Amino acid sequence: MVDDLNTQVNNDKPSPAVDSRDVRMVLVNPSHPGNVGGAARAMKTMAITQLVLVAPKDYPDPRAAWRAAGARDVLEAATVVETLDVAIGDCDLIIGTSARERRIPWPLVDARECADRVYSEPAQSKIAILFGREDSGLNNEELQRCHLHVHVPTSDAYSSLNLAMAVQILSYELRMRSLQSGAATPVSEDPWDEPFASAEDVERFHSHLAQTLADIEFFDPDKPKQLLTRLRRLFARVRLDQMEL
Amino acid sequence: MVDDLNTQVNNDKPSPAVDSRDVRMVLVNPSHPGNVGGAARAMKTMAITQLVLVAPKDYPDPRAAWRAAGARDVLEAATVVETLDVAIGDCDLIIGTSARERRIPWPLVDARECADRVYSEPAQSKIAILFGREDSGLNNEELQRCHLHVHVPTSDAYSSLNLAMAVQILSYELRMRSLQSGAATPVSEDPWDEPFASAEDVERFHSHLAQTLADIEFFDPDKPKQLLTRLRRLFARVRLDQMEL
Repeated sequence: MVDDLNTQVNNDKPSPAVDSRDVRMVLVNPSHPGNVGGAARAMKTMAITQLVLVAPKDYPDPRAAWRAAGARDVLEAATVVETLDVAIGDCDLIIGTSARERRIPWPLVDARECADRVYSEPAQSKIAILFGREDSGLNNEELQRCHLHVHVPTSDAYSSLNLAMAVQILSYELRMRSLQSGAATPVSEDPWDEPFASAEDVERFHSHLAQTLADIEFFDPDKPKQLLTRLRRLFARVRLDQMEL
Repeated sequence: MVDDLNTQVNNDKPSPAVDSRDVRMVLVNPSHPGNVGGAARAMKTMAITQLVLVAPKDYPDPRAAWRAAGARDVLEAATVVETLDVAIGDCDLIIGTSARERRIPWPLVDARECADRVYSEPAQSKIAILFGREDSGLNNEELQRCHLHVHVPTSDAYSSLNLAMAVQILSYELRMRSLQSGAATPVSEDPWDEPFASAEDVERFHSHLAQTLADIEFFDPDKPKQLLTRLRRLFARVRLDQMEL
C-alpha cells in the first residue's frame, strides 16, 4: 500500500523505441485474483506495464501469479492503493470502461477510438484507463470522474466480457495504434498551449464549487438533484487546462 | 466424439440480423480446460458460437464450465473431434494462428486483415480459424493445411498471448468488422465464379499428387526435402476452385 503513486507507477516506462504513451491500467476492486494475473499478462503482451489495483479483494494470491505466467514482473510492480483518488490524482486524461446498458450519458468512444484519443494526447500526458468490478463495473461516481467513457461493442445476446479480456482488448487497440506511428493525428485534436489540469486539482475545484454554490444558496445540498453531476459532465467535456483552472 | 462434423457445427448459426460469416473456432489439443471455457466466453461476447475442439486434454472439466460463465451453451454445443481433418474437412477457407518467430514463410495477415479476409468471402463459405497448443502452437504440418496465417503483433519483450486471449482478439476483430456492414469489400477480392474446393478434396488431391510424383520418380519419397511443402504452399496460394481441382 502506498500513497505516493507518482514515484511508483513510473518506474517501468515502455521502451522509447516504439511510439508510446504513459498509460496505466487501473482495476477498481477486482474480486478474482486470476483476473488480476490475466490482466497483467494481457498488458505485457501489448507492451503496457503500469498496473494499479484499487482495494483488490484476495490479493496477493498465488492464482494471480499463475495466470500472469511470464508477466509476473508486471504483477509484482503493480501499485496497490486504497482509493481511486490516489490511483488517478496525477492523471491528465481519465477514461472509464462502461457497459452500454448502464452508462450515464457521457462522451463515449469504442476501444479503437479510445486508442486514437490516447495517441492524440501530448506524449507526456499521464493517462488512466479504469476497469470496474467483475459483477457491477464502475459505479456512477467513478464514471463521473472520467473525461471519456469507452465501451467494447459486444453481442446483444451476451455482453459480459471478462475483466482480463477487456484489459486485453483495450491493450491490443493501444498496441495496434502504437505501431502506426506515422499515422496522422486526428484533426480535432490540436496540441494545446497550456498543460491540462490534473485530476487532483480538478477535484479540489469541484469541492470548492459545490461548497460555494451551497453557501450562496444556489442549490440545497440535501436535495442536490442532478446539479453536481451536470457540472461534472460539463467540465469533463471542457477539460480545463491549468491556466483556466 | 462425432465424425460427421457438418451436422454438428451448424446448429447454432449467428442471427441473420447483423452481417455475419460461417466461422468456426478450432482449438487444436488445448491442455487447460480453463482456456476452453475462456475461449467459449470470448466468442459468445462477440457473437461467434461455433467451437470445435480437436483431441482436448482433460475435457470435459468443471473448470471449463466455470470460466465459460454465461457462455456454457457455446461450450456444451462444442464439437469434440479426434483429428484436424474432421474439424476442417468441409471448410472453404482455413486460417491458422502463428507466432511470428516460428512461422514458415506463408501468406500472413494480422488479426484486423484476417477479419477483412473473412468478410470478403462469399456469405456461404465455411471458414475455420485454428488455434494451436498453449505451449507450442500449431505444428508445421497443421500450418501447411492453412490458406493463410494470422498473427497478433505482440510485444517483442513478451509475445506469449494466452490461448483464450488470442481467441478473444480474433473474435473481437470479426465482431468489429461485422458491424461495418456497409464497408466496401477489398478490391483484391472479386467474387469467384466457381465454388472453392473443400479442404477434404484438396487433401485427396495432395495425396494423389504425391503418389503420382513418386510413381514417376520425380522425387524420392524417402528424401522428399521441401518439395511437398513447396507444392502445398503453392496450391494454398492459388486456392483451387472445384472446377480446377
